[in-house]
Amino acid sequence: MKKLINLVDAIVDEAGDGLAAAHPDLVRYQRDPRVVYRAGSPIRGKTALVSGGGSGHEPLHGGFVGLGMLNAACPGEVFTSPVPDQMESAARLVDGGAGILFIVKNYTGDVMNFDLAAELLRADDIAVSTVLVADDVAVKDSLYTAGRRGVGATVFVEKIAGAAAERGASLAEVERIAQKVAAEGRSMGMALTSCTVPAKGSPTFELGATEIEIGIGIHGEPGRERTALREAREIVETLVRASADDLELRRGERVIVMTNGMGGTPLLELYVAHRDVDRMLRDRGIQVAGALVGNYITSLDMQGCSVTLLRVDDELLDLWHAPVHTPALRWGV
Amino acid sequence: MKKLINLVDAIVDEAGDGLAAAHPDLVRYQRDPRVVYRAGSPIRGKTALVSGGGSGHEPLHGGFVGLGMLNAACPGEVFTSPVPDQMESAARLVDGGAGILFIVKNYTGDVMNFDLAAELLRADDIAVSTVLVADDVAVKDSLYTAGRRGVGATVFVEKIAGAAAERGASLAEVERIAQKVAAEGRSMGMALTSCTVPAKGSPTFELGATEIEIGIGIHGEPGRERTALREAREIVETLVRASADDLELRRGERVIVMTNGMGGTPLLELYVAHRDVDRMLRDRGIQVAGALVGNYITSLDMQGCSVTLLRVDDELLDLWHAPVHTPALRWGV
Repeated sequence: MKKLINLVDAIVDEAGDGLAAAHPDLVRYQRDPRVVYRAGSPIRGKTALVSGGGSGHEPLHGGFVGLGMLNAACPGEVFTSPVPDQMESAARLVDGGAGILFIVKNYTGDVMNFDLAAELLRADDIAVSTVLVADDVAVKDSLYTAGRRGVGATVFVEKIAGAAAERGASLAEVERIAQKVAAEGRSMGMALTSCTVPAKGSPTFELGATEIEIGIGIHGEPGRERTALREAREIVETLVRASADDLELRRGERVIVMTNGMGGTPLLELYVAHRDVDRMLRDRGIQVAGALVGNYITSLDMQGCSVTLLRVDDELLDLWHAPVHTPALRWGV
Repeated sequence: MKKLINLVDAIVDEAGDGLAAAHPDLVRYQRDPRVVYRAGSPIRGKTALVSGGGSGHEPLHGGFVGLGMLNAACPGEVFTSPVPDQMESAARLVDGGAGILFIVKNYTGDVMNFDLAAELLRADDIAVSTVLVADDVAVKDSLYTAGRRGVGATVFVEKIAGAAAERGASLAEVERIAQKVAAEGRSMGMALTSCTVPAKGSPTFELGATEIEIGIGIHGEPGRERTALREAREIVETLVRASADDLELRRGERVIVMTNGMGGTPLLELYVAHRDVDRMLRDRGIQVAGALVGNYITSLDMQGCSVTLLRVDDELLDLWHAPVHTPALRWGV
C-alpha cells in the first residue's frame, strides 16, 4: 500500500488539522471527540445543520462546513460510522437555540448512532430533526443498509437545506426543504478499480484488467453487475437512465446534475463523462439547470464515477444559487 | 488500461465539450483549432491572458478561463504542446485591442510554439508579451526542457496577473506582475505511482511496490531520486525545504502555498500532507497568507503531490484576494 500518510491511526485527525489549517477563516477541528465545525459557532438563532459519516469520502462532509451549508461534520474512522458522542458534541458546539437538523446517509451504523445522539440531545431539551438520504438506485438493500444507500444527493441536501437555514428558516422549514431534496435526488456509481482502505492495506475487492463494476457503493460494496470495460457513453447511459427512470423525469423538467469522481479519476475523464451526461439529459428533453463536475463524494483512491440527478423547481433552484462558502464549494461570496 | 473515455483520439475535444457544457455561463470550446475561451469574448480594452499546454494536467489550463484569470487556453494532445495555430486563433478570439500576454510553462515545445504564434500576431500589429514559468526546483534541465520546468507557479501567475488585467492594467503592467509572480514561485513534486497516457496504454514508468520518486515532472519525467516509501512528513519536509531554500525565504516573510494533488491522490491524503506543509512553514517562521489544497495541476491518474510556495507582498496578496470566477477557482463572486 502506497499512501501519502504518516501513521494509519492518525489519518483522520491529521486530515482534520490540515483542513482547518488551510481554511482558518472557515472551520475549526476538535480532536476529542472528532468534529469539524464552523468558525464563529454557535450562531445565535440559526437552525444548525450537522452531518457526518465515515472518512474516506472527502470532501464530504468536513469540506462542506461553512456559510450556507453545514455547521458541523463528524468524521468517523475510514469507512466507519462516527459515534454518538461526536454528534452530541457537534450539536452542542453549534447549537444556536433554533434546533439541529441531522443529515444522515442511509447506512445502518450511521442511522443508529445519529438516533442515539438525537435522543441524548432531546433529553436535554434541544430540538433535533433528522433527514435520511437514500438516493442510490443501484441496489435495493446492501451490505451495510436496509433500503437504498445514501450517496451523492447528500451534497445537494447539505447545500440547499443549508441555504434555507442561512436565510433564517426554522427547523421545521429547513427539514421540509431537506426532505424535499432527498426525495428528488437519485444516484448511481461505477468503479474501474477498487479502493484501498489504509488500515487493511490491500484492495477491498478485485476487478479484472478489463472488468468494471456498475452500481458500486462508496465503500466498495457490490453493485448491480460486473461487466466488461466499455466506452464512457455506454457507462454514463446506464447511470443516467437508472436515475432518470427512477425519478420518472419527464420532458421539460429541470435537474441539477453532479458528475462525481470516486477520488482517483482524473478530471480530464470526468469532463469526457460529463459531456455524455449532459447530452443524454438534453436528448431526453430534460433541462440542465446546474452542474457540478469533480470530486465531491469519493471512495478513497477508487477510480470511477457516479452521476446524481436532482429534480428542481424554482424554490430549490433559488436556494441552490444562494451564496455558499466552504472549503469545497464556494460561490456568491 | 482502464479509463473513463470513448475513443482515445477524442478525449481532448470531448473534455472540452464537457467543460463548456458544465459552465455555459463561463467558457466556450472551439474544436478547430482547439481553444477554450471566455464567454463574451473579446472584452474591449482589456489586456487578454492566453495560456495553454499539453492536456492531462486538468484543471490547468482550461479550468482557469474566466473572470479574473485567463481569457483563453489552448489544450494540446495529452502531454503534447499545442500548435501555433491554436495560440494565434485564441489570441484573435479574445483580443480586445489592449494586447495579449502569453503565459508559457518552460517546456521546449511550448516555448517554440508560443514564440511562433507571437511572431504571427506581431506581424499583424497585435501586441504580444510572454512570461515564462520555470519554478520546478527539482532538476536543472530535464527531458523536455532547457532550464527548470514550469509547474505549479503557473496557477499563481494566471490568478494574480489575471486579477491585474481584470482591473484594467495595461499589457506592460500585467506583464510586470506576471514576471514578479514567476520570480517568486518555486515548486517540487513527488510520485507514489506512474501515470498512464491513454495513447500508450501502459504506465509511463515503473516504480516498485515500496518505491517513490522525488522531484518527478508532471509528465512522469525523472526527478531527483528514487527512494523508499516514507512518511508524509518526511516527503513534505523534502519538498518544502527545496523550495524554501531556493527562494531564500526568511523569517517573517509571507507565502501563499499550494498543496497540489497529481490527479489520483485522495483529498484525505492531501489534507494530511498539507498539515505538515503548514507546520513546517510556521516552524521556519514563515507566515502562511493563503492556501490551496486539491488538484490544480495534475499528471493524469498519477498518485503523488507537489508543493508550490509563492513569496508575496501586499501587492500580490491584494491581487490574490481579488474576485475570480472560473470552473476550478472561484471566490468573491
